Amino acid sequence: MTIKDIAKLSGVSVSTVSRVLNNRPDVSEVCRSRVNAVIQSSNYIPNNSARDLVKTRSDAIGLVVRGVSNSFYTDIIRSIEKSIDAAGYTMVMRHIASCDDEVKCGAEMEREKRLRGIVFLGGCHDYTKERIKLLNVPFVCCSYTNRYGNLDDDEYSSVSIADEDEAYKAVNELYRNGHRRIAALISTPDDWSISQLRYRGYRRALEEHGLPFDESLVVSAGSFDIKDAYAAMKEQLNRNCDFTAVFAIADDMAIGAMKALREGGKRVPEDCSVIAIDGLTVSDYIQPTLTTLCQPMREMGQKSVEILLDMIEGRGENRHLTLETKLRRGASVKDLS
Amino acid sequence: MTIKDIAKLSGVSVSTVSRVLNNRPDVSEVCRSRVNAVIQSSNYIPNNSARDLVKTRSDAIGLVVRGVSNSFYTDIIRSIEKSIDAAGYTMVMRHIASCDDEVKCGAEMEREKRLRGIVFLGGCHDYTKERIKLLNVPFVCCSYTNRYGNLDDDEYSSVSIADEDEAYKAVNELYRNGHRRIAALISTPDDWSISQLRYRGYRRALEEHGLPFDESLVVSAGSFDIKDAYAAMKEQLNRNCDFTAVFAIADDMAIGAMKALREGGKRVPEDCSVIAIDGLTVSDYIQPTLTTLCQPMREMGQKSVEILLDMIEGRGENRHLTLETKLRRGASVKDLS
Repeated sequence: MTIKDIAKLSGVSVSTVSRVLNNRPDVSEVCRSRVNAVIQSSNYIPNNSARDLVKTRSDAIGLVVRGVSNSFYTDIIRSIEKSIDAAGYTMVMRHIASCDDEVKCGAEMEREKRLRGIVFLGGCHDYTKERIKLLNVPFVCCSYTNRYGNLDDDEYSSVSIADEDEAYKAVNELYRNGHRRIAALISTPDDWSISQLRYRGYRRALEEHGLPFDESLVVSAGSFDIKDAYAAMKEQLNRNCDFTAVFAIADDMAIGAMKALREGGKRVPEDCSVIAIDGLTVSDYIQPTLTTLCQPMREMGQKSVEILLDMIEGRGENRHLTLETKLRRGASVKDLS
Repeated sequence: MTIKDIAKLSGVSVSTVSRVLNNRPDVSEVCRSRVNAVIQSSNYIPNNSARDLVKTRSDAIGLVVRGVSNSFYTDIIRSIEKSIDAAGYTMVMRHIASCDDEVKCGAEMEREKRLRGIVFLGGCHDYTKERIKLLNVPFVCCSYTNRYGNLDDDEYSSVSIADEDEAYKAVNELYRNGHRRIAALISTPDDWSISQLRYRGYRRALEEHGLPFDESLVVSAGSFDIKDAYAAMKEQLNRNCDFTAVFAIADDMAIGAMKALREGGKRVPEDCSVIAIDGLTVSDYIQPTLTTLCQPMREMGQKSVEILLDMIEGRGENRHLTLETKLRRGASVKDLS
């Protein structure tokens, strides 16, 4: 079975079959479906080398996911995949550890996989003009911006929540419920990641409400991992300093902390309230259900791809989109007021 | 900057640069790193159409993931990605709903993305010889086999656990702890999926221990979704039929059921024990921690890719691998004996 046989069986020219095989737009839907039907029924395998002579452009879009154990990414990845697929491109994904350099990984993929564009999911906020010179295709920062870098707004795109403001809102919710001794469960306070930004929101909320900042209430897990959050909260409880609530910067971390609190004899929310940011599905099933600010994961993925495709296809320039979270009240915050 | 400039700056021939760009093996490591260094520092963008003339084979391996909301897949996907990447291939992933046809999706991807092979994650156990004719490349069934189909062993590959036996073990664990009225939380009893196989293991365990089968203890959620499992267990509790334990065929479903049990006034494990199969990380952090048979997720992904690459690269034929689970004792099973 050759491309000529397919053409004959479909009643179209060889070049039409070739255009169908290469997903080219200049074929009528009637021809396309007729050719595809013949291909399907004949188990024809396209001759790759011949196809490459025709195909002149890659359709690959890279997705670099930084921080492999973050459940929060799952829904975003699916939404990105769906959007890339619907637009006729191919998603090529790579997961890297939090300690790895996503720009370098993206640059390598760009060359190896001939990417047309890149979505970075969960990167650093500190890109320099020098650093992004490694990249020769458009890219979108999904879930973060360039707060600590020196890029101009027109040098990159982003879709994110306002991390500092959302953290501020979460701590406000605790304040509104009468909490005054509020611990923060973060990764680190100065890593130029969302951890630092959410930590700033925590600090700002304390300040605006006239609550004194107490360093002993800052619990640094050193990562976003559920295990590390659990261990950090265990240690915190050994230090015997009082607090009535914990603001965790991520759902996973809150779930880890809740286990530590339980094991330390503190009931949630009777003895200690917990609030977080993310809105994982599972957080709504645990005991007690977690009060959390839900991120619009699907929209975040969708919009990132939309902006990227606008640039790839010459419809738009770099731009920035800030999305809002939505408070999902669970049973993990006690009203002390 | 052209390929000639890169060759000049690297001190190698144009054809060597071309081989490096196409990831060909016939280049010394010294040349490769020299050329790559020049490319990195120069921000050179390869001319795609020229590259296509050289590149004759796709390096794409497809991953079709069926059942989008299954958290159990996350670690397997990462392990598959890592293994494909390490071997120098490109993973192209597509998620489909449980009601979609993974073979058709794989066949379409095979043509669109010129796949060299396919890993199916979470498919049906009922492939016919006729159906797999759609596929013209080697494929591996990851997490399932062909129990309800008519394929010969040499017509497909698989990496899975022995679902029926593992379910049998889980129910045995409940029996060993003195439970005699044991409910089964499944998707459906006759969907030719792991749900049916694990349901068979449940039935076999009851039978071997001389426990009467009671249809009113079979809770069919209609899917593997946490929400559906929660709703099904809610309904079951309204029926007022006694049971001291639940065997859930998946962790996610167990977590959904535990919320329903709580809301129905049943404490786990005091009033009702729960055991499951999967071994999600989060299951070890919830209250109470879930007793579950942990699947070797990483190994499952790794071995699937290993078998597939052996076929793609002509080192091996179709083969089948059965892996074992490991019991992780949590606090969700009460000893009644």
